[in-house]
Amino acid sequence: MAKGSRGRIVRIGAAQSGPVQKSDGRQAVVARLLELMKQAKAEGCDLVVFTELALTTFFPRYYAEDRADMDPWFETAMPNPATRPLFDFAAGNGIGFSLGYAELTPEGRHFNTQILVDNNGRIAAKYRKVHLPGHADYEPRRSFQHLEKRYFEPGDLGFPVSRAFGGVVGQCICNDRRWPETFRVMGLKGVELVVLGYNTPSTNSLRPEETAATRMHQNHLCMQAGAYQNSCWVVGVAKAGSEDGHHLMAGTAIVDPDGFIVAQADTEDDELVVHDCDLDACRFLKETTFNFVAHRRTEHYKIICEQTGAKPPK
Amino acid sequence: MAKGSRGRIVRIGAAQSGPVQKSDGRQAVVARLLELMKQAKAEGCDLVVFTELALTTFFPRYYAEDRADMDPWFETAMPNPATRPLFDFAAGNGIGFSLGYAELTPEGRHFNTQILVDNNGRIAAKYRKVHLPGHADYEPRRSFQHLEKRYFEPGDLGFPVSRAFGGVVGQCICNDRRWPETFRVMGLKGVELVVLGYNTPSTNSLRPEETAATRMHQNHLCMQAGAYQNSCWVVGVAKAGSEDGHHLMAGTAIVDPDGFIVAQADTEDDELVVHDCDLDACRFLKETTFNFVAHRRTEHYKIICEQTGAKPPK
Repeated sequence: MAKGSRGRIVRIGAAQSGPVQKSDGRQAVVARLLELMKQAKAEGCDLVVFTELALTTFFPRYYAEDRADMDPWFETAMPNPATRPLFDFAAGNGIGFSLGYAELTPEGRHFNTQILVDNNGRIAAKYRKVHLPGHADYEPRRSFQHLEKRYFEPGDLGFPVSRAFGGVVGQCICNDRRWPETFRVMGLKGVELVVLGYNTPSTNSLRPEETAATRMHQNHLCMQAGAYQNSCWVVGVAKAGSEDGHHLMAGTAIVDPDGFIVAQADTEDDELVVHDCDLDACRFLKETTFNFVAHRRTEHYKIICEQTGAKPPK
Repeated sequence: MAKGSRGRIVRIGAAQSGPVQKSDGRQAVVARLLELMKQAKAEGCDLVVFTELALTTFFPRYYAEDRADMDPWFETAMPNPATRPLFDFAAGNGIGFSLGYAELTPEGRHFNTQILVDNNGRIAAKYRKVHLPGHADYEPRRSFQHLEKRYFEPGDLGFPVSRAFGGVVGQCICNDRRWPETFRVMGLKGVELVVLGYNTPSTNSLRPEETAATRMHQNHLCMQAGAYQNSCWVVGVAKAGSEDGHHLMAGTAIVDPDGFIVAQADTEDDELVVHDCDLDACRFLKETTFNFVAHRRTEHYKIICEQTGAKPPK
């Protein structure tokens, strides 16, 4: 439970990262994250939300014939010597965080992973990205590559939620936010707060006329709909700016259960966005408009689970 | 198919209704709808989208101890003498329409129904509202009643789509738009255009501090997310204004497959909003970001179909 006197308010620091260049080492990146954590602590945050693949550049834009050549971008243990300072700071200062990184398991499996660390510095929950965007093979027609399907396998943990920070907390990552199934699965588990990171190019590799504004609109639209339709808070945190000439959108946002953005990043750099999220604000819509047991009609949803692709009528 | 020279463009007239008072007869209401159809024909529309319960006031705000007392609000046949002029105009002028009304079947069943009528004046598809909002019994704690669950049974037809107007067309009604399952089921059937009507109070009967602006935001948010996440057009048409002192929101909107509102009503009265909807604009996202077969992970969605209510962790 949250601290008694503050009730169900969780002060969240959405810790946007500026760009991470290919040549930047883990130690330098972690120093930047630690700086954001210190700022969050100074501002009284309970939880700091870091971005997807926070420790490295967005390496899936680079093609490697041999997938193993990309293994240096992956973490084989968490914490590890590079990230230990984040865990130590959390434990020493009673502040939690979530962190996205590329995970290489002892069995040699690759996931796009995010962990939730409690205010004792212990990993409370792990999530592995389910909806991998992009493609598995080099595609010359694209203005740049997006090879997540090459370097990761789809997450095998579903969309777990856990009791943490005084409420029910879930995680997802980047492209997961575009899929209403992501939020609904967690909504059915009573989620009150979804934390997610994203690394999203500002241009579409297949549709150059698609504007950055269109893409930002869609980024926020999905998070706002996910929040409202499941009556939960959504905290979406970008890695932003130009990574070796490849631009990622910013737009880090905290969305309330009514689907409004209540706090948003101003820059494309390292930036902390702080908001007091009252988890009790989730209750009203969960008990009325989105009282699932009263209103959902699962007998008409079967195709959602039974059919993967679209099948237009003859 | 759409007329050859115009390709896959469907010119849609979103025909918002102003208020219908309790004392207004069907004939007077149909005369207003017919006026909108004539205007749509003059503007070259292929399809006119009317609202939910277009023929009557929003009667579920009134309580009747004996449900049968409400039967006069229902249509026992469609077309019927009152609505025949709409069908005749459609056939005579080669223009289609969708129309919401309360349906009482020969078996005595009550549905909140919407039909799609083709440009020969024939009923091409029928939909019965699945997600009935509100409640079944009188609730004194509410500032007004919303008794859809009393007077209707949930739709028994699922979310069908059909080939019409040169594309794949689906329907839903009002509260259905708040549920991502609605759009997803149709998205899995390749839907390119969803037409829907709504009668939505401007205030929340249980939360007086909820502003009309909040409610309008949520109205549009759900339609925009449904459009983008399934890469289809969504046309949402209000019955608006004050019905015997009960105010309904306007906000009739046409949403493109990128999730943008491209045309919107300015008034709370009878008003036609016209837009050329290019169904080919649905293709890009259906083949890339929302290529369902490439990206959906149904193995993690089961709870959506198997569990109705929310179950938070212990």
